[in-house]
Amino acid sequence: MRRSLFDSDHEAFRDSFRTFLQREVVPHVDEWDAAGIVSRELFAKAGAGGFLGMAIPEEFGGGGVEDFRFNTVIGEEFAAAGAGAIGLGLTLHNDICLPYYLSLCNDEQKRRWLPGIAAGELITAIAMTEPGVGSDLGSIATTAIRDGDEYVLNGSKTFITNGINSDLVIVAAKTDPGQKHKGLSLLVVERGMAGFDRGRNLDKLGLHAQDTAELFFDDVRVPVANLLGEEGKGFSYLMVNLPQERLSIAVAGVAAARSALEWTKTYVRERKAFGQSIGAFQTTRHTLAEIATEVEVAQHYLDQCVIALNAGELSATDASMAKYWCTELQGRTVDRCLQLFGGYGFMTEYPIARAYADARVTRIYGGTTEIMKEIVARSLDV
Amino acid sequence: MRRSLFDSDHEAFRDSFRTFLQREVVPHVDEWDAAGIVSRELFAKAGAGGFLGMAIPEEFGGGGVEDFRFNTVIGEEFAAAGAGAIGLGLTLHNDICLPYYLSLCNDEQKRRWLPGIAAGELITAIAMTEPGVGSDLGSIATTAIRDGDEYVLNGSKTFITNGINSDLVIVAAKTDPGQKHKGLSLLVVERGMAGFDRGRNLDKLGLHAQDTAELFFDDVRVPVANLLGEEGKGFSYLMVNLPQERLSIAVAGVAAARSALEWTKTYVRERKAFGQSIGAFQTTRHTLAEIATEVEVAQHYLDQCVIALNAGELSATDASMAKYWCTELQGRTVDRCLQLFGGYGFMTEYPIARAYADARVTRIYGGTTEIMKEIVARSLDV
Amino acid sequence: MRRSLFDSDHEAFRDSFRTFLQREVVPHVDEWDAAGIVSRELFAKAGAGGFLGMAIPEEFGGGGVEDFRFNTVIGEEFAAAGAGAIGLGLTLHNDICLPYYLSLCNDEQKRRWLPGIAAGELITAIAMTEPGVGSDLGSIATTAIRDGDEYVLNGSKTFITNGINSDLVIVAAKTDPGQKHKGLSLLVVERGMAGFDRGRNLDKLGLHAQDTAELFFDDVRVPVANLLGEEGKGFSYLMVNLPQERLSIAVAGVAAARSALEWTKTYVRERKAFGQSIGAFQTTRHTLAEIATEVEVAQHYLDQCVIALNAGELSATDASMAKYWCTELQGRTVDRCLQLFGGYGFMTEYPIARAYADARVTRIYGGTTEIMKEIVARSLDV
Amino acid sequence: MRRSLFDSDHEAFRDSFRTFLQREVVPHVDEWDAAGIVSRELFAKAGAGGFLGMAIPEEFGGGGVEDFRFNTVIGEEFAAAGAGAIGLGLTLHNDICLPYYLSLCNDEQKRRWLPGIAAGELITAIAMTEPGVGSDLGSIATTAIRDGDEYVLNGSKTFITNGINSDLVIVAAKTDPGQKHKGLSLLVVERGMAGFDRGRNLDKLGLHAQDTAELFFDDVRVPVANLLGEEGKGFSYLMVNLPQERLSIAVAGVAAARSALEWTKTYVRERKAFGQSIGAFQTTRHTLAEIATEVEVAQHYLDQCVIALNAGELSATDASMAKYWCTELQGRTVDRCLQLFGGYGFMTEYPIARAYADARVTRIYGGTTEIMKEIVARSLDV
Repeated sequence: MRRSLFDSDHEAFRDSFRTFLQREVVPHVDEWDAAGIVSRELFAKAGAGGFLGMAIPEEFGGGGVEDFRFNTVIGEEFAAAGAGAIGLGLTLHNDICLPYYLSLCNDEQKRRWLPGIAAGELITAIAMTEPGVGSDLGSIATTAIRDGDEYVLNGSKTFITNGINSDLVIVAAKTDPGQKHKGLSLLVVERGMAGFDRGRNLDKLGLHAQDTAELFFDDVRVPVANLLGEEGKGFSYLMVNLPQERLSIAVAGVAAARSALEWTKTYVRERKAFGQSIGAFQTTRHTLAEIATEVEVAQHYLDQCVIALNAGELSATDASMAKYWCTELQGRTVDRCLQLFGGYGFMTEYPIARAYADARVTRIYGGTTEIMKEIVARSLDV
Repeated sequence: MRRSLFDSDHEAFRDSFRTFLQREVVPHVDEWDAAGIVSRELFAKAGAGGFLGMAIPEEFGGGGVEDFRFNTVIGEEFAAAGAGAIGLGLTLHNDICLPYYLSLCNDEQKRRWLPGIAAGELITAIAMTEPGVGSDLGSIATTAIRDGDEYVLNGSKTFITNGINSDLVIVAAKTDPGQKHKGLSLLVVERGMAGFDRGRNLDKLGLHAQDTAELFFDDVRVPVANLLGEEGKGFSYLMVNLPQERLSIAVAGVAAARSALEWTKTYVRERKAFGQSIGAFQTTRHTLAEIATEVEVAQHYLDQCVIALNAGELSATDASMAKYWCTELQGRTVDRCLQLFGGYGFMTEYPIARAYADARVTRIYGGTTEIMKEIVARSLDV
Repeated sequence: MRRSLFDSDHEAFRDSFRTFLQREVVPHVDEWDAAGIVSRELFAKAGAGGFLGMAIPEEFGGGGVEDFRFNTVIGEEFAAAGAGAIGLGLTLHNDICLPYYLSLCNDEQKRRWLPGIAAGELITAIAMTEPGVGSDLGSIATTAIRDGDEYVLNGSKTFITNGINSDLVIVAAKTDPGQKHKGLSLLVVERGMAGFDRGRNLDKLGLHAQDTAELFFDDVRVPVANLLGEEGKGFSYLMVNLPQERLSIAVAGVAAARSALEWTKTYVRERKAFGQSIGAFQTTRHTLAEIATEVEVAQHYLDQCVIALNAGELSATDASMAKYWCTELQGRTVDRCLQLFGGYGFMTEYPIARAYADARVTRIYGGTTEIMKEIVARSLDV
Repeated sequence: MRRSLFDSDHEAFRDSFRTFLQREVVPHVDEWDAAGIVSRELFAKAGAGGFLGMAIPEEFGGGGVEDFRFNTVIGEEFAAAGAGAIGLGLTLHNDICLPYYLSLCNDEQKRRWLPGIAAGELITAIAMTEPGVGSDLGSIATTAIRDGDEYVLNGSKTFITNGINSDLVIVAAKTDPGQKHKGLSLLVVERGMAGFDRGRNLDKLGLHAQDTAELFFDDVRVPVANLLGEEGKGFSYLMVNLPQERLSIAVAGVAAARSALEWTKTYVRERKAFGQSIGAFQTTRHTLAEIATEVEVAQHYLDQCVIALNAGELSATDASMAKYWCTELQGRTVDRCLQLFGGYGFMTEYPIARAYADARVTRIYGGTTEIMKEIVARSLDV
């Protein structure tokens, strides 16, 4: 069924981004995978190409168009290129971190940060999760105690995407440690601040090209000028921005599933067994029919979610549904597809093997499937 | 997420139909269930209310608007009223049989049949399936041999919805028995034609209020004036109309799932166990969250299918995806919901028990899930 | 893989019971199904044939052998004969009610009741569940207040198997209503006691030949001589006997699954579609391979459970695992098998359609799947 | 439920092997994982400890006891130690390669090879799979053309476990290339033979400590004295030995699932979220109850398979059922367990992350799930 989400602007953007990927990303997939991190230059090149900060006002160097369909194109094309792990840092920058800056920065902060974000010179990250504290934001132990014109920041964060590359890190910390959710504030910690250290790049099951790290804050003196929005409102800011984060993950999930399906169709057409292509076996054909159907269902549903997000109507419940359902779909799809590759599916030189490993975390990060169901359940009033 | 499918006309129609259901259908549910058939009057009353033949031109007594969203409203409201089995005969009449008359009748046929169809005085059925021949239309054994101005019809059909109540039956028969698909033609057999007999109302697992029967044709002389369209084109006519049939089943399936969810939410709120409502148990809550999510995904996907159908863009593949996926969803949803009713779920006085029994055939009729996957698989080109 | 559970005694018993079924049960399946109850004579004939009370000492007219493998044979053969609903009343009598009499009766009670139970003249039932109280035995509201040599019994029970046919009903009632579990006692209520009434035979989704009813107790004066075991120990007696009840349900579940598989293998061999038997389609073959594998796994596991029960080693956790896993297996198996019958699977004249309807309650009665998981979870110490 | 498979000899062997693992294996897990291969010394130490060649007659340095329960203990303990990838090479040696030598070697060959195999000085491998030929043994393209007292071997093999470490490789090759299955013979290729080359150690999704490689044969002159059994009977030898290979994989699969369950129970007991241990959440508890039940079912079923194998009764169908069902169980179990670890489950320092990656190939190697179902289907006679 034809998708009606995009118009010609988005398709032009897609063409242009696809070209960018082929030139600047695909040749480096193995290299960055082995290195465990992408080159910082990738951000700068993406910025130059117009693929960062599309939603940033033009006066600050951005695209000036707030339309999540462009972000959707980027998520889809990274997956199609077999470069989902590489894409993650950029979509985090665009889809997840940027909205905080756009909605919360005062004029001075906008001038200070937005141009660098748009240019890919200031790479962003956001630090919520702490060792021993998963989805439970009320239990955050990192503190930021006001001392004159500064906050004194202490604590540690973990599983931070762009953890090594990032220049600006939004840190959720308790400015009032006596409170739970109401004590949270968001501070922007900058590369090079004294007492701000990064742990090693963590060894992960997948997402090898993505730098993920622990961050340590030992009496880091963060100027009050780096406070995002108002003190004590951090939790509500997170709640406002989580739906877009979750939708971004859902978009990448369905895109990954669709890519896996395409690779598999190609493979089963060519691969022979017992005298015929394995795509000729009825069980293979029905498996692919099931996958194709699920991807189709998910895509059309998700396109409606993107429309709702653009219209400001995507609720926390909606985003939780989309996030969990689409990443579960991604999980079972890459698993079923890999199976059809036989032994080759276990070899990391095949994109399906990487996609399988990468997929395992999408049901966890951004809020686990279990947390998503909890949020949905609350909305049911039972 | 808000549905955007309907406008105010459809909502007015929904209100009016809901009133009709409460007055003319709900009081008779037990009676018709026990009788194994609905009263013929129901069709006449539906016709009078404007709930039949919405797509029939006004000159023939219809609504004059070809818009499947009205059909969608009817399917949804029957399910919500716990009267899905009763609704089936009417949706068959409106969604499945009528399109053949609208697209294939010549002027004389239109004058002869459409007013009765719109009024609910000519109840319709369609007879494809034969004993021993399921989804394999090429193997149809019923023959219609031309003899002057008549066809001599011989054979039998089974599993015919509205089998007892129907006045007009579209029969797929081989006018050229030497051919497979190309030998098929569609004839309208009328109540009372000599040699046309009906078997008993079949004992089914569910759909008790729906009359389903075998039909027997023993040298039935059908006038050539009752041929629909051209001789030998029957298979292509079926192919053209099957997508709407399958979408109709999908719509009823998702509506049934949504109704089951609503009944279950109400039940678990009220039912107590171990000192709390069973809706307070986390496992109940997550189960309902999963169901609610799947229904939401299916609904938004399906709404896009309805739009595509209205635009003439719903392909056979699309309809097969929708039919199988939505009825599989229906199956697992009513099963999971029933479980939450405990022992009461097994008592037929509870709508969920009837919905469970009714649901079992939707993965079979209109083309089994397996046939749907076969159709989808063909489109994948593997 | 060869089963090693049975020896030649059990196989001889199986032959003899199979003959009994063919002569005394199979010819009545439709009749009892329509009547909603089996003939009382069936119990008498089963008693005469040696198929009741195999575990009752010979001096009381029983078989004198406590060996659940004989019960297993009966459960398996009822399912194989497509008479699972009929079998339920007898297996309740043998597997579930009898153990209470054997372990708790004093000598006088044994003399009074065991001969009739063995002969099939005293049909038994057990009444735990109450309207509004499912698996939560501590909340039982039926009371039995001691008054001299009698208890005055008040309350109602529901979903009682053999509800109409039973002569002796073990009723769980609070002799000390101020207590929860510790206040429970077991009383034998006899047919004809004043104030003991039965509701109508309930309309169920399946198990049509099985009489299931509500029971009402209005100031029923039950002699203290009808107390089973000690006052206040009812809950612990139930706990002791529930494992065998649950294993009995598990045995019937796997037997039902195996029967469904056998019927389906026969059907797909004979049924043709698109020019070949449907058993020749690869998807059919793999579906059946999956089902056959699961049945095989379940059977060998369950045989070990029977051995453990015979050895007195089957724990509550073990029985809960077996009950839930085997009935879930039954549910998905009959569902998948029915699908392969196409439209015929929805016709109640086909055993698969009845087996499907019957199967829906086994995940509920004897403790729902959810309760079983709760019991298993407790044993995990997490 | 108590397992009855083992007696005190096996338990003593288990204790001794567990000690060996703690001393010789566990300290090297990270090192061998990083190296992509285990030290050759591991085999020598295992040999010295009595953990290789238990089935080899004592006169050749083995244990002299053919009893797969010892092999089962080894498979279970490797998994429990989180060292499944390391164990694979040894179980391949013991369970899969050795039986060919035991049943097919002539006396001279026994003297030449068995002592080294028992001592761990001759590490074994078996090479069936070729690039482009998966489970279809009839299509093997490697040829071994007789030339005097030698075969001239040409071709290549891939996905060979112990590919780098192996000293003796059983190669399936066509001695009569004009035939399909009947042309196959088994030759033992030895380290250092001219023209025998190994490709690089392949980069895999998991099983990082296991060396897997391509092997190349370019005019390798293999003495006829290295033919195993008779020329042209290779296929039947493979068929005879595949059941034990598949059972070995099933044993490792269930052991991996059990280990994952144990790690997860420990984790959820300790990990806190929202003010309680995550093991206290009902959804966590039911998830673990489901996993524990499935592992229990699988274990008791599998123990019966081991008994059948020891008795020479495990058919190809039985082994296919066990292989596919137990590895599918492994797959879904490690997936569900990993989820409960949240973000930590994605970190390779956690055994669950490695177990997840390792598990993905067990549904593929030794015959894919699809091939197993095909074998089972054949036995159903539909």
